[in-house]
Amino acid sequence: MGSRLLTLARDLQRRRGRERRALFVAEGVRAVEEVVRARLSIRGALVTPQLLESPRGRTLKNSLESRGAELAEVSSRELASAADTETPQGVLAIAEVPQYSLDSLRLPVQARLLVLDGVQDPGNVGTILRTAAALGALAVLALPGTVDLWNPKVIRGAMGAHFRHPAMQVEPEELFSYLTQQDVELWGAETRGDQLNGIAPPARLAIAVGNEGAGLSESIRAHARRTVALALEPGVESLNVAVATGILLYALRGQVGLA
Amino acid sequence: MGSRLLTLARDLQRRRGRERRALFVAEGVRAVEEVVRARLSIRGALVTPQLLESPRGRTLKNSLESRGAELAEVSSRELASAADTETPQGVLAIAEVPQYSLDSLRLPVQARLLVLDGVQDPGNVGTILRTAAALGALAVLALPGTVDLWNPKVIRGAMGAHFRHPAMQVEPEELFSYLTQQDVELWGAETRGDQLNGIAPPARLAIAVGNEGAGLSESIRAHARRTVALALEPGVESLNVAVATGILLYALRGQVGLA
Repeated sequence: MGSRLLTLARDLQRRRGRERRALFVAEGVRAVEEVVRARLSIRGALVTPQLLESPRGRTLKNSLESRGAELAEVSSRELASAADTETPQGVLAIAEVPQYSLDSLRLPVQARLLVLDGVQDPGNVGTILRTAAALGALAVLALPGTVDLWNPKVIRGAMGAHFRHPAMQVEPEELFSYLTQQDVELWGAETRGDQLNGIAPPARLAIAVGNEGAGLSESIRAHARRTVALALEPGVESLNVAVATGILLYALRGQVGLA
Repeated sequence: MGSRLLTLARDLQRRRGRERRALFVAEGVRAVEEVVRARLSIRGALVTPQLLESPRGRTLKNSLESRGAELAEVSSRELASAADTETPQGVLAIAEVPQYSLDSLRLPVQARLLVLDGVQDPGNVGTILRTAAALGALAVLALPGTVDLWNPKVIRGAMGAHFRHPAMQVEPEELFSYLTQQDVELWGAETRGDQLNGIAPPARLAIAVGNEGAGLSESIRAHARRTVALALEPGVESLNVAVATGILLYALRGQVGLA
């Protein structure tokens, strides 16, 4: 039993394994607590004796058991062999990827969607997911070229955000037809875009942020109603994409009084 | 000669070595290019044959030579032994830490200063330095408990920002008397603070952001005129500190029309 879960967790280290099985791995006390709190379906968990050394760890083990999760005791070395982090704090859970879809989104009159157009760094994407949830984006939509949303480093940075808030991969054509259907205007963020200050956003807006180096894809550029930029000091090329996304979501939320 | 520079670079891996010698290490093509561009004083550079494989690398080597920097050819293995990154791209430069001081700051009528109150993650601090330069903060002031501003991971994230923009360590008492003297109001950022929207900032403002886990120090809390917060969705505890700093600097700059 332990070895079956261990083999499964190792298989989930690769994106292909995660996509085929629609499962992902949460590592460490905090991430596993978030999985429990979000009431995701838990396939099983690997624990080492280290987890039981702290009251918080013992509580977590009890929660996992009361949720009916299959638990396997493994050694620290075995746990490390299935984990991305060097110190997974004695626990790793295997859970089902929440099945969000565009059709299941309920768009209010005023809505903000965030589109990731080839954002590659998992730390950036994790931070962006956390930020989008905090600033009221209704969903995060990841186009091809974006890092897997269920990559362990993304999970770490997101701190549970996409366990509860919709985030999903979408194909460009699927996205564009959805936006048209739902009357959502698409904007792209780009350093050469129009200055954001003073532009009134539409009620329903999807804002796309691009790859850390190359920026937006041709396809997004072609479909965006406009591109916008944040005013930067002379001589500074760009902001980190997670910081830029935070400012955009904050500024565009504020302007229509969604806060 | 090569071995002397190599020994020096290794000594600069530790904060104590950097502080004693007032030197730091820039690793990789981009960071060393930024050192050259910022006209910092370069003590020497280690290069491997790999650097000469690209036109950009050859140009960089020429720039280093024309600046009179002492160059030492080393093996990839030797370079790696003195570097923080796994792939320093065949080049590492040793440069003098720019000597910024509070006294040398020229504060205009309207000014923004950023205070780092125990921010510990070097990736966060690097991103914050880059953001502060981009959004017009006049200087970044790091209180004790903040990671060393010349740590290699900070340098990587900052992308040259504090090679050109003032950033320095300060003691709390020194900071507080400077702010009083220069008529700069101090605010702290804190999730329980007043909602930022609708508060008019003073002409001269220093905004302090705290430790990733513990938040602001007692000393900053005691001296801050007020604490402010960004409006977050219910159920979300906090933003990443670099993202929060970006939003604060953007929002507070916008409100007084410094852009």
